Amino acid sequence: MSHFYRLVVSCPDRLGIVARVSNFIAGHGGSITEASQHSDLEAGRFFMRYEILADSIGMSLEELRDAFAPVAREFDMQWALRDTRDKRRVVLMVSRESHCLVDLLYRWTAGELDCDIAAVISNHDDMRGMVEWHGIPYHHVPVAADNKPEAFARVEQLVEELNADSIVLARYMQILPPNLCQRYAGRVINIHHSFLPSFAGAKPYHQAHDRGVKLIGATCHYVTEELDAGPIIEQDIHRVSHCHTPSDLVRFGRDVEKTVLARGLRWHLEDRVLIHGNKTVVFA
Amino acid sequence: MSHFYRLVVSCPDRLGIVARVSNFIAGHGGSITEASQHSDLEAGRFFMRYEILADSIGMSLEELRDAFAPVAREFDMQWALRDTRDKRRVVLMVSRESHCLVDLLYRWTAGELDCDIAAVISNHDDMRGMVEWHGIPYHHVPVAADNKPEAFARVEQLVEELNADSIVLARYMQILPPNLCQRYAGRVINIHHSFLPSFAGAKPYHQAHDRGVKLIGATCHYVTEELDAGPIIEQDIHRVSHCHTPSDLVRFGRDVEKTVLARGLRWHLEDRVLIHGNKTVVFA
Amino acid sequence: MSHFYRLVVSCPDRLGIVARVSNFIAGHGGSITEASQHSDLEAGRFFMRYEILADSIGMSLEELRDAFAPVAREFDMQWALRDTRDKRRVVLMVSRESHCLVDLLYRWTAGELDCDIAAVISNHDDMRGMVEWHGIPYHHVPVAADNKPEAFARVEQLVEELNADSIVLARYMQILPPNLCQRYAGRVINIHHSFLPSFAGAKPYHQAHDRGVKLIGATCHYVTEELDAGPIIEQDIHRVSHCHTPSDLVRFGRDVEKTVLARGLRWHLEDRVLIHGNKTVVFA
Amino acid sequence: MSHFYRLVVSCPDRLGIVARVSNFIAGHGGSITEASQHSDLEAGRFFMRYEILADSIGMSLEELRDAFAPVAREFDMQWALRDTRDKRRVVLMVSRESHCLVDLLYRWTAGELDCDIAAVISNHDDMRGMVEWHGIPYHHVPVAADNKPEAFARVEQLVEELNADSIVLARYMQILPPNLCQRYAGRVINIHHSFLPSFAGAKPYHQAHDRGVKLIGATCHYVTEELDAGPIIEQDIHRVSHCHTPSDLVRFGRDVEKTVLARGLRWHLEDRVLIHGNKTVVFA
Repeated sequence: MSHFYRLVVSCPDRLGIVARVSNFIAGHGGSITEASQHSDLEAGRFFMRYEILADSIGMSLEELRDAFAPVAREFDMQWALRDTRDKRRVVLMVSRESHCLVDLLYRWTAGELDCDIAAVISNHDDMRGMVEWHGIPYHHVPVAADNKPEAFARVEQLVEELNADSIVLARYMQILPPNLCQRYAGRVINIHHSFLPSFAGAKPYHQAHDRGVKLIGATCHYVTEELDAGPIIEQDIHRVSHCHTPSDLVRFGRDVEKTVLARGLRWHLEDRVLIHGNKTVVFA
Repeated sequence: MSHFYRLVVSCPDRLGIVARVSNFIAGHGGSITEASQHSDLEAGRFFMRYEILADSIGMSLEELRDAFAPVAREFDMQWALRDTRDKRRVVLMVSRESHCLVDLLYRWTAGELDCDIAAVISNHDDMRGMVEWHGIPYHHVPVAADNKPEAFARVEQLVEELNADSIVLARYMQILPPNLCQRYAGRVINIHHSFLPSFAGAKPYHQAHDRGVKLIGATCHYVTEELDAGPIIEQDIHRVSHCHTPSDLVRFGRDVEKTVLARGLRWHLEDRVLIHGNKTVVFA
Repeated sequence: MSHFYRLVVSCPDRLGIVARVSNFIAGHGGSITEASQHSDLEAGRFFMRYEILADSIGMSLEELRDAFAPVAREFDMQWALRDTRDKRRVVLMVSRESHCLVDLLYRWTAGELDCDIAAVISNHDDMRGMVEWHGIPYHHVPVAADNKPEAFARVEQLVEELNADSIVLARYMQILPPNLCQRYAGRVINIHHSFLPSFAGAKPYHQAHDRGVKLIGATCHYVTEELDAGPIIEQDIHRVSHCHTPSDLVRFGRDVEKTVLARGLRWHLEDRVLIHGNKTVVFA
Repeated sequence: MSHFYRLVVSCPDRLGIVARVSNFIAGHGGSITEASQHSDLEAGRFFMRYEILADSIGMSLEELRDAFAPVAREFDMQWALRDTRDKRRVVLMVSRESHCLVDLLYRWTAGELDCDIAAVISNHDDMRGMVEWHGIPYHHVPVAADNKPEAFARVEQLVEELNADSIVLARYMQILPPNLCQRYAGRVINIHHSFLPSFAGAKPYHQAHDRGVKLIGATCHYVTEELDAGPIIEQDIHRVSHCHTPSDLVRFGRDVEKTVLARGLRWHLEDRVLIHGNKTVVFA
């Protein structure tokens, strides 16, 4: 089974970046199987993602990183170089709604999500059976109004012990504390419903129904300290009409939420999402 | 060419409405070619729309209205009964962007919009040639910061003289005064861009680009005194990615705006849109 | 918990059908919660579906059927009257691909599919564990080139013993014999991939990739003796590009197949699909 | 106003192509504003498209071509290098249905289609007024069963005299003769309706209605000698239901046809479509 080195770069745009990087790869005999580039002309920033057949390069990942470092410095790059054999370790967090979790577990089982699932953490114990049936550890960390600091300290400790790389909030109905958002910046993915117009407060699907919207949507984004305002990875919608009850909207919402989250997570795992400021470049 | 009577009803939901109405129609020999009904169980309200072959009924529109009035009173109905031969007279209002206007004129020429276009009113003179080439009168009513009351008095006078039934704001970048909104309540249709999240202020497509949204949309709605908050008729979206510049977003926005407005207007003209409070039932 | 009587009717179109039926229901005090009608003017045929609050009618299902029978005769109706408490018994048939089965089981667990799942029948034993974990019986009926008559006799016997009402081919890669198709006409639902243009023969996703299609789709339809030509219930598509490999297409195909099948089955279970000749009316 | 050099390359995939080409561009000081690449791993073929700020290169187009030729030979490239100031000359061909033509003319007027429209050629005289109002020459070349060779000789002569680069069949209901297809291979774009399943013969929308399809579509493709089988550029669909009459399907078909054709033509004009065998790479 082939494995690949994935090189992801973001840097100020200037002459000769592609030439320099592709020369570097060609100079080491690297066979590029997928290449994506983007120049954000307004921001003056350049983004690239290369997938290189690992066997075509006579170097270990460490050696390749060392060799590339001077190029990166020269162009002031933010960069990452990963071996696809080094799977990311992901922690899934969930509350009581299971649709996103079940969908992710199925896709993971089917080989659609290239990661290890280190554990599921939940503030409820409802899904233990289903999760453990998949052979995945389940941690119940109750969260109440009066124990939030302790609860999230426990979550943080768990994530650390589990050696997790990324966190997916698969309908986890709690707000992560700022320190956790910062520590895992660009590695915590959330899914939330979206509407035109948007609705604040409780029961958004009921509000959307009262307003007679014709579309309901979902947005997958990286979590930042500002609630639901982090860089958007993916969005999609589902059409609705006056025929649909609030519970129909909730049901359609589940479908679009799970689809959008699965797409966003897959792209994250494949290093297809590059963050710059509060927006993303997605080489989907 | 067959013509039809269209009966549109909204009333408190209770036993026997359909029986009473369909008996009434059958009792006059009416052949129903299209029937739609909806019970809003939360609101306790019933909506129906019947299309009846006019020749199957041995009565004029006036006679049929008189005959139906007692039924309507019995069930406390809001209702309308129209003859499809009596085309609505529509005034189109436009500023400088022509995409919606051109699209509506083409669809009207192609027979997709069953109405008379009484005139185009614009605060600019740019589109006179194109509009007059279609044989439609063009009225230039400049609007400036210091002449708004006079300008809209002139608009109102024109709409009245033109004997217009409905007004379409086809990218008319001015806010209609409250009295005009009230006078033509449920008969002024607007199109505006929509985003997830939404963006207030100028240059919304540039803001959406800066935020890295993955969808841009448009909403067609009836105009009320509260800006962009009236009952929604139709919405749709177009996918975008990091590859797209602000001007690409503007271009996609044009496409989705014109499509959504044309659909909404068509449904309005065919009496498919029933308003209840701040939402619509659309028998599309 | 309220239950409902669902009346589904198809008959030659003529004057007074709605009046007669709605009089009948109102005459028995029936409160209609959902009503849909359609006149196929080309075919001269009328279709209707009423959902009636059972408690509003002082009659059992049997009594109501007896009372309605004369009305049905008068209008030469094909009709069905069901109590939503009488859940349909469904048999799922599957081969080796699990995506549709897993999706249906999840939706069933989540209450989206109002039926009993009598059993899963498969020509392979792969999914026994997962199915039995859901508490559903699993029957392995191997099918080989030289045992088809016996195998399908066994399938038919099982379906009969299980007292199944409907059969779902959730990626069951075998062709049902004609007698089974006839016996369960209008009650066997299949999902198959669809492309523009269409591709006969093996590995359709690879063929589609070679042809460079920009859309892949899926069609959910009732099974008839003619392969993949029965009445269409639902279709949908997923966009693809040159970036996508054949295995990406297979993956997208899984998503669109499971979504389309779930929608079609739900509508079937809710008596929203009326068949006429080789087409359907879907009151979705 | 900036102009750009567009380099489009297709060649056997091997080590160092990107390095060689980007070195070449960087070596001449070229500032790349957009870069797209694709490796078709099955076909072993590489595709690239670069957009280079012309002013950043101190060479004329001719000089740049001469300088690049050795690189192209080295890698056995099919390639083109164009200056965006050299607009393509396009001939539009149309029969009696105007929706695609009107849409293209509007987009062209709005600056969405970067080309010169050399003329409209039609086998009918219906649209002369509208076309000439846009300031575009109109040529009426009647085609009848008994004059096809003469008619198409006249078409070919016109296209030649008009010095046209590309031909768009915007609902031109005639089949081009093989010699014309060959002569303008990869430069004749057609739009045709598409259905699942597909329908041969006359009145396809009526056939689709009879079959009860839930989607109607359109395909934009390059014309080859084999009817409707050339490389696909773009496809899209529109949802339909049993409510829709054949004339509704025709109307939706017009919308999807014009949208898909406009997208396909825009990509063609921007050199975003690379043909390989019977499929395309579209750097949209």
